[in-house]
Amino acid sequence: MAYNLAPLQNLINQFERMQGIGHKTAQRMAFYVLGLSREEANAFANAITEAHTKIKQCKICCDLADDELCPVCKSESRDKSVICVVEDPRDVAAIERTHEYKGLYHVLHGAISPMDNIGPDQIRIKELIARLGDGVVDEVIMATNPTVEGEATAMYVSKLLKPMGITVSRLAYGVPVGADLEYADEVTLSRAIEGRSLI
Amino acid sequence: MAYNLAPLQNLINQFERMQGIGHKTAQRMAFYVLGLSREEANAFANAITEAHTKIKQCKICCDLADDELCPVCKSESRDKSVICVVEDPRDVAAIERTHEYKGLYHVLHGAISPMDNIGPDQIRIKELIARLGDGVVDEVIMATNPTVEGEATAMYVSKLLKPMGITVSRLAYGVPVGADLEYADEVTLSRAIEGRSLI
Repeated sequence: MAYNLAPLQNLINQFERMQGIGHKTAQRMAFYVLGLSREEANAFANAITEAHTKIKQCKICCDLADDELCPVCKSESRDKSVICVVEDPRDVAAIERTHEYKGLYHVLHGAISPMDNIGPDQIRIKELIARLGDGVVDEVIMATNPTVEGEATAMYVSKLLKPMGITVSRLAYGVPVGADLEYADEVTLSRAIEGRSLI
Repeated sequence: MAYNLAPLQNLINQFERMQGIGHKTAQRMAFYVLGLSREEANAFANAITEAHTKIKQCKICCDLADDELCPVCKSESRDKSVICVVEDPRDVAAIERTHEYKGLYHVLHGAISPMDNIGPDQIRIKELIARLGDGVVDEVIMATNPTVEGEATAMYVSKLLKPMGITVSRLAYGVPVGADLEYADEVTLSRAIEGRSLI
């Protein structure tokens, strides 16, 4: 009667609370933990507390950092005249993987969404404005998600920044590379046509 | 550059080691942990070490237990003349959910599988034989999985037990309740025809 054992049930509940993890998966995960050696289980538990204790937010860009500053803000080789604004630390990781962008980042930790009671004050817009005072930054690239909320956030921020004489740009919309045109939705396709370039 | 932060990467790796968890899911789980409060993260980590420390195997049936004996073996109300033999503790939980079976269990922790180098000595068959010496048990129900390995294990155990004068039975094969005949595989269907009963 595994479901009667409190420590096991507790562990299953912990896994089940995660988004996208159903009861069966949580159960499988809990049994995986029981199958670990004592050292491995301790290492797993430590990884959780350690990640939680050691990882904080970068004082400048609000990205995740294990120090006062994140690796990008600390780096001497990054172009300090461009800031790419994203919603989430995972977006920073995604852009870093392209190895194309050499500027700085700013993580908003969300997007403006009146439906969810998230206004401009609930995300890190103030912190972004504070970084722009010294005249070093020429351009802000709004890389918020291509959703209604991300779009609204990009518009809101651009309206704040334009009077400060800063160029505000937005990621290009279009068909994803490698995708099949047949399956592209109409909005994406019409944006791709709108933004067409000469070859 | 989230993928550069050692504590985060370590946590992602811990999740990714679990069967059926890919990199993206592991990443999402790690971010879920970062989003927890300090207390919640500690509770999560404790659940892992606690489940690992407190859960052992029942001395009689080898099922999981948080004590010397599992709740079924401890119970006074169970029928001690029948033992249901399963491969895995999860199978005990599945059978308990039916609320039909009132006997005892025995968990083999695997099935005979020469391909994976698992012979009769690698699973808890000795422990099962040891329980049958006192003449209390009349019947052993083999509820190993309906796979080649489960089948082989059931055959092996039944050959050992029959000379001891114990009735050995096997779960019925047939079409699952609520399923569509159209999608039943041929082997299941022919077993269902073979095992047909009068109405």
